[in-house]
Amino acid sequence: MKAGPSLEEIRRHNLGTLLRHVHISGSLSRAVLTDRMGLNRSTILGLVSELASAGLVREELPRDTGRAGRPSLVVRPESDQAYVLAFDVGVDRLIAARIGLGGAFLDRRETPLPPGHRSAAEVTEALAGFARQMVGAAREGSVCVGVGAAVRGTVRRLDGMVRAAPYVDWLDEEFGEDLTRRLGLGVPVTVENEASLGALAEHLRGAGAGCQDLVYLHGDIGIGGGIISGGHLLGGDAGYGGEVGHMVVNPRGGRRCGCGGRGCLEAEAGERALLEAAGLGPSATGREAVRAVVEAADRGDAGARGALHDIGDWLGIGVANLVNLLNPRTVLFGGTLREVFLGSAAQIRSRINTHALTPTREHLRLRVGALGDDAVLIGAAELAFSQLLVGPLEALARHAAVAGP
Amino acid sequence: MKAGPSLEEIRRHNLGTLLRHVHISGSLSRAVLTDRMGLNRSTILGLVSELASAGLVREELPRDTGRAGRPSLVVRPESDQAYVLAFDVGVDRLIAARIGLGGAFLDRRETPLPPGHRSAAEVTEALAGFARQMVGAAREGSVCVGVGAAVRGTVRRLDGMVRAAPYVDWLDEEFGEDLTRRLGLGVPVTVENEASLGALAEHLRGAGAGCQDLVYLHGDIGIGGGIISGGHLLGGDAGYGGEVGHMVVNPRGGRRCGCGGRGCLEAEAGERALLEAAGLGPSATGREAVRAVVEAADRGDAGARGALHDIGDWLGIGVANLVNLLNPRTVLFGGTLREVFLGSAAQIRSRINTHALTPTREHLRLRVGALGDDAVLIGAAELAFSQLLVGPLEALARHAAVAGP
Repeated sequence: MKAGPSLEEIRRHNLGTLLRHVHISGSLSRAVLTDRMGLNRSTILGLVSELASAGLVREELPRDTGRAGRPSLVVRPESDQAYVLAFDVGVDRLIAARIGLGGAFLDRRETPLPPGHRSAAEVTEALAGFARQMVGAAREGSVCVGVGAAVRGTVRRLDGMVRAAPYVDWLDEEFGEDLTRRLGLGVPVTVENEASLGALAEHLRGAGAGCQDLVYLHGDIGIGGGIISGGHLLGGDAGYGGEVGHMVVNPRGGRRCGCGGRGCLEAEAGERALLEAAGLGPSATGREAVRAVVEAADRGDAGARGALHDIGDWLGIGVANLVNLLNPRTVLFGGTLREVFLGSAAQIRSRINTHALTPTREHLRLRVGALGDDAVLIGAAELAFSQLLVGPLEALARHAAVAGP
Repeated sequence: MKAGPSLEEIRRHNLGTLLRHVHISGSLSRAVLTDRMGLNRSTILGLVSELASAGLVREELPRDTGRAGRPSLVVRPESDQAYVLAFDVGVDRLIAARIGLGGAFLDRRETPLPPGHRSAAEVTEALAGFARQMVGAAREGSVCVGVGAAVRGTVRRLDGMVRAAPYVDWLDEEFGEDLTRRLGLGVPVTVENEASLGALAEHLRGAGAGCQDLVYLHGDIGIGGGIISGGHLLGGDAGYGGEVGHMVVNPRGGRRCGCGGRGCLEAEAGERALLEAAGLGPSATGREAVRAVVEAADRGDAGARGALHDIGDWLGIGVANLVNLLNPRTVLFGGTLREVFLGSAAQIRSRINTHALTPTREHLRLRVGALGDDAVLIGAAELAFSQLLVGPLEALARHAAVAGP
């Protein structure tokens, strides 16, 4: 337990907090900032001036307010001055984006990633290529203040080592450090699990905005989970928390899971289980196949309906367990679980009503994510922005001196 | 997101933090406080003087150090100046204690609580009687700064309403507010779930000291859970988090649970399941019966061994799920689960090794709680102290003016 902050630390915190407000909200009047931050007007004016001098915000007239009279100025983030790179090592593609302060996508590129083993070196090389192109296309003088990368697997928070990512067949890959070195931007790469980043993105900018306790479930090949508890991403001791897919829900006679166990939520309710229950062979795979099952069920196909019923049962048990353990306000479904949820919501709710205690579920909201497929990439960007939003001037100064790759 | 603190808030924070250090550690030299808090010596001197003037700490020579030379003074909490009341509405008894700053038990009383329905009014009346006696016996001028109470059930954090406590047959009882009123101490009663308080106590003073991510499992009639995540008690949206006992681990053909569901961890691995598996009838109940099963297994009794094996299987699955979800550093077993763990540790570990992913379990420690049966009461006391430790002088002034009951 440390002592309270120094005056300098408070100043830094206030600059960061103000910048975070305009970064998330897009544009805010000084009056609103005064109110939200609980500071007086002259202090807010000083903070805005300091951030404006650094080129991180500007004050301007709001877009047409539709009201008569002279509108007050609003503070906007300068999306061209500070940006981050965000990478998503997806199931079937690599996606890269350059995202400006304020959250605007300034550049976006992707390339297919065929299924099966892909060496970390290969992926690192491809991402570094994207980085070169995107940084090269950035306005002269704009500064890269962070890099975030998402993988579907367990990631050590300390150094971004990917302990296991079965879909690309990685085990103990020093991905974070290798990518940092390969990019040569002088900016450390922060690596996180894809569902944790989805949770962060939906919490900050999506269907979970304003909600301090939420769970985000992300479906593609497997089922990933991200937990926001008390407004913070729950990582646990080393960052491996949130492995919802390997919660055992059917230990006796359950389906074999890729992890070696039996009856994991992912084995019972994942994409493979759904497609098999719907009578589709191993060649059916991916989002389109999942969507086809949901559409067939909508048309009244009995096999598809039965499959969604079964999967909804297992998903509902999994969510009920999360609700009893974590008492979230919101559970969000993203990736292919978006479609699955839309097709089996009644079954999921029914299971939650059976298995979750009344107090833990009485204010629960089940929703699909609001950010769609970009949730993971947006989460990676938000993680990458976090240093800037803790100490804006220091972060800018640290990285401004660094040349591009 | 609020702005950083004012100078006055920092001063208050520093006083609270220093007091928290000596409250938990018992006695610390100013040099150690300087080091731990990252403040300079004169600031520490000023804080100690201010707390000493308020009578909350004193400086004195340490007990025999066994070293030659003049020892430096240590700062000690004045356990007689500020105290809390802690209550535990247990399974078979009501326990009350007066606990001084620093954690010393100054007074302790208990009375049997026969099983079955006990009205909240009856319990409140009995606790108020204890409070009268204990406050009456306190030194003139000493101040009650908080009251904490533990119940086995779901508790709304906002106001201490007990939403459900099946063992006493309570539903939506305004226990926190009624007890506050009945005590008439001018100090609000904070009510919490018993396992959450066990987790807090073991985290601050027990087997989880220094560990920021832990799970505490408490067994008596049911199985309660308390989760410390990132150093904070995980409550969720309204304080109902941690309902580990109702995690479904055996939904198909599992045992009926008191909650109305099927295959909950509590139904599969609780006291009733163990005693039945060991062939004992419904008259066998409580800690002694559980201990007898573990001792019989130690002597080689095949039935008792089989029962512990089965229960250990289910407990291991439950813990594996928690490990995958929360990546705790430590899982602690308290109440009757202490005995059960000692009798089935190998089985529990084996299940964790099967079902928890390698990264989530590789640094995991399984331990029995260090505080024994007092863990819950100590947790209630720590919760009651929290206001004092946030702003010592304000809390003392607020409550010093209040007369006893």
